[in-house]
Amino acid sequence: VASPQLADLAALTEVVGADHVLVDDDVRAGYEVDWTGRFRGRCRAVVRPGSTAEVAAVVRWCGAHGLAVVPQGGNTGLVGGSVPGPDGDGVVVSLHRLQRFDPVDEVAAQVTVGAGVTLAALHERVRGSGWAFGVDLAARDSATIGGMIATNAGGIRVLRHGAMRAQVLGVEAVLGDGSVVSHLGGLVKDNTGYDLAGLLTGSEGTLGVVTAARLRLVPDPPDRVVVLAPLPSVAAAMALCARLRARVPGLEALEAVLGDGLALVCDHLGLAHPFPADPPVALLAEWAGEGDPPDALVEIFGSDDVLVAADGAGRERLWRYREAMTESISAVGVPHKLDVTLPLGSVAEFADAVVGAVQAAVPPAAVHLFGHLGDGNLHVNVTGVDPDDERVDDVVLRLVADHGGSISAEHGIGRAKVPWLGLVRSDSEIAAFAAIKAALDPNGVMNPGVLLPGEG
Amino acid sequence: VASPQLADLAALTEVVGADHVLVDDDVRAGYEVDWTGRFRGRCRAVVRPGSTAEVAAVVRWCGAHGLAVVPQGGNTGLVGGSVPGPDGDGVVVSLHRLQRFDPVDEVAAQVTVGAGVTLAALHERVRGSGWAFGVDLAARDSATIGGMIATNAGGIRVLRHGAMRAQVLGVEAVLGDGSVVSHLGGLVKDNTGYDLAGLLTGSEGTLGVVTAARLRLVPDPPDRVVVLAPLPSVAAAMALCARLRARVPGLEALEAVLGDGLALVCDHLGLAHPFPADPPVALLAEWAGEGDPPDALVEIFGSDDVLVAADGAGRERLWRYREAMTESISAVGVPHKLDVTLPLGSVAEFADAVVGAVQAAVPPAAVHLFGHLGDGNLHVNVTGVDPDDERVDDVVLRLVADHGGSISAEHGIGRAKVPWLGLVRSDSEIAAFAAIKAALDPNGVMNPGVLLPGEG
Repeated sequence: VASPQLADLAALTEVVGADHVLVDDDVRAGYEVDWTGRFRGRCRAVVRPGSTAEVAAVVRWCGAHGLAVVPQGGNTGLVGGSVPGPDGDGVVVSLHRLQRFDPVDEVAAQVTVGAGVTLAALHERVRGSGWAFGVDLAARDSATIGGMIATNAGGIRVLRHGAMRAQVLGVEAVLGDGSVVSHLGGLVKDNTGYDLAGLLTGSEGTLGVVTAARLRLVPDPPDRVVVLAPLPSVAAAMALCARLRARVPGLEALEAVLGDGLALVCDHLGLAHPFPADPPVALLAEWAGEGDPPDALVEIFGSDDVLVAADGAGRERLWRYREAMTESISAVGVPHKLDVTLPLGSVAEFADAVVGAVQAAVPPAAVHLFGHLGDGNLHVNVTGVDPDDERVDDVVLRLVADHGGSISAEHGIGRAKVPWLGLVRSDSEIAAFAAIKAALDPNGVMNPGVLLPGEG
Repeated sequence: VASPQLADLAALTEVVGADHVLVDDDVRAGYEVDWTGRFRGRCRAVVRPGSTAEVAAVVRWCGAHGLAVVPQGGNTGLVGGSVPGPDGDGVVVSLHRLQRFDPVDEVAAQVTVGAGVTLAALHERVRGSGWAFGVDLAARDSATIGGMIATNAGGIRVLRHGAMRAQVLGVEAVLGDGSVVSHLGGLVKDNTGYDLAGLLTGSEGTLGVVTAARLRLVPDPPDRVVVLAPLPSVAAAMALCARLRARVPGLEALEAVLGDGLALVCDHLGLAHPFPADPPVALLAEWAGEGDPPDALVEIFGSDDVLVAADGAGRERLWRYREAMTESISAVGVPHKLDVTLPLGSVAEFADAVVGAVQAAVPPAAVHLFGHLGDGNLHVNVTGVDPDDERVDDVVLRLVADHGGSISAEHGIGRAKVPWLGLVRSDSEIAAFAAIKAALDPNGVMNPGVLLPGEG
């Protein structure tokens, strides 16, 4: 069944081919809902351009017809930024066909890839070059490089290599006015104008569509050691993290499971508890390098109760306690997932306060805390309350703002957090964002309703 | 002697105090010329605001009166970006009085400082905290943090820690419309809007005035080793650099002196030549860490003819061969200084080609090459020709562009390189830059004539 305005779309079929303009309700449906199921909208069509030039033609056509452009990669986002709004007046631009994959530049330790390449494919293709890609995250099989740039994705190695913005040396992109910019030379030092690549990274599809990127690669050390340690408090864990960061080069991850999370994982998976008693914090550290880890790693952790693994199977076993948190929580109930950062000096105080604050506001709630402790990035999961009860989001995000934190560490604002953006960004900042958006997206077609207040 | 429009400036004296509005010709003169002496302009007054609010008032006043705002820090730039243009219709805003210096946050490894703090003062104040600031450069005693952010300054440690943009976690700034934005929370993961700090970094004062910044600090390892090695060609040096980058974590610098540079330094300083014969390339590597350097450092360099120093005096002695290049060249004559980056795979070809190209275009020229080889960043110094003979700049910058390089690695575009910006940036990119500038500087008062073509 075609949408009533099908005739208008004829021009699009001339650009991308009839096979790549999808208008049937059941075909569109998969592109109109995010994977959490919480965000569901409608679009006139899904368009699948096969080149940067085709993306540009689509954006210009949408601009001329006043239709929203909703860029979509792997559609693995958690804040509704990759699906259309409810009014149905837009076009989803799926970027899966942008599969450019240049040979790895082993001298420069760089590679150029299309926006539609998945993270898993990138890791796979880079393997064996002596280099690795510095960002990794659980959605790797679906998440695309374009989407990860649009959201400045983070993950488990930000501590060592930074988030996506730190990997992006340049982009090719279609801006909101339909113009194409391309700067894929991969020069590490290049002071010739404003940092367009950095600006587009994390802009959540509201300024333009990234179609390809030049990415830096990082060393891929042969040896790795994982340590899992019980700690008496978040404050103690933060102090230990600070000492590790100061004295252990090669630290790749500092992750933590708080409170009863470890017991939850052990119960869910039927694992033996790793420690004699439940610690308030289980801290996981991974070091990578060549040879033995620095003495400081051993000195700082001490040896009582600490589990250490240097072989692949052992490392995987220790990581399991952290990585299984998500599924173990989901087994309890459908959670509110709030992804926040605190200043490192305030993580302990926030972690102590948030449980009581949520339970006071929404009494039946259970609060589960885990995340990228070394970055101050906690995933606050709340079960036992209706997934749509925004009182949970409100109390957590306000507490975050009161502690000088960020209401979005690595997921973005999307559609989900627009109402709370003003908690952490001033009127002047939001006005500056709006001015930048108007400059690069003068027709206002790029992902309206996402990141900034607006229609869509 | 006051400028004719002195009466107009009364409002400014009310903002910053009469002591901080400088109008006398001889007092202004020092602010109107850059330290190379090549760029000299005129301004109505030099204003020295003492707070962000005062900067905002000055910018708004200039906007209302159509006067250019020329932000100035240490005035150590090499491309004329911190001095007024020739028309005299602007105000230099000196930021030296912005001396905020918050205590070092040792948990987060961060510090907040005012724009007027010098790099040397920052290093000094951070010393003893267990952390260090990751950028260093020769102009440290004069260069200010604000100016270094405005120019995205680089220096000798970019290889390890990145340039200024990688150190800036957030800024306080006055945008071109006089609004104040401030985001100094220091959150490493913070996806709540566009990357204003990254955009302002490297914008050369054309979008706004950075008044303070939250900076990341880096570990300050106790042990350092410097290696100086003779290599038979730039290609061999680049291959060795690639192996070092892949296998030696903790590499802080990869610097080189090419051709007869080493002999020039030895002659100038009366030093013994470090090697039995003049090598085509002298490569200097510095490693920092705790304990002994990785075995890979020794393996990759081998031992024939290689000089190694682990103590402070020995390291300084080896660095001297690289650091004295600038003064040794200046002893030969007033050089053209061109700061360029090449793709790592093209450095060798460019280095071979540039000497002949310059000598063919301007026959009496002598070409001296040195720089941050690990970043692909060469300083092309040309002596033996008139310092104002733009044929030199033209032939070098065109050759850089032909090799896919950048016409500015770490100095910026300033006033000096505006005519060549189109060699490396497309019309679409320059249009996007102009749109961003118009968005944040709607009155067009911020440093006109710098970075982008325009009046001033």
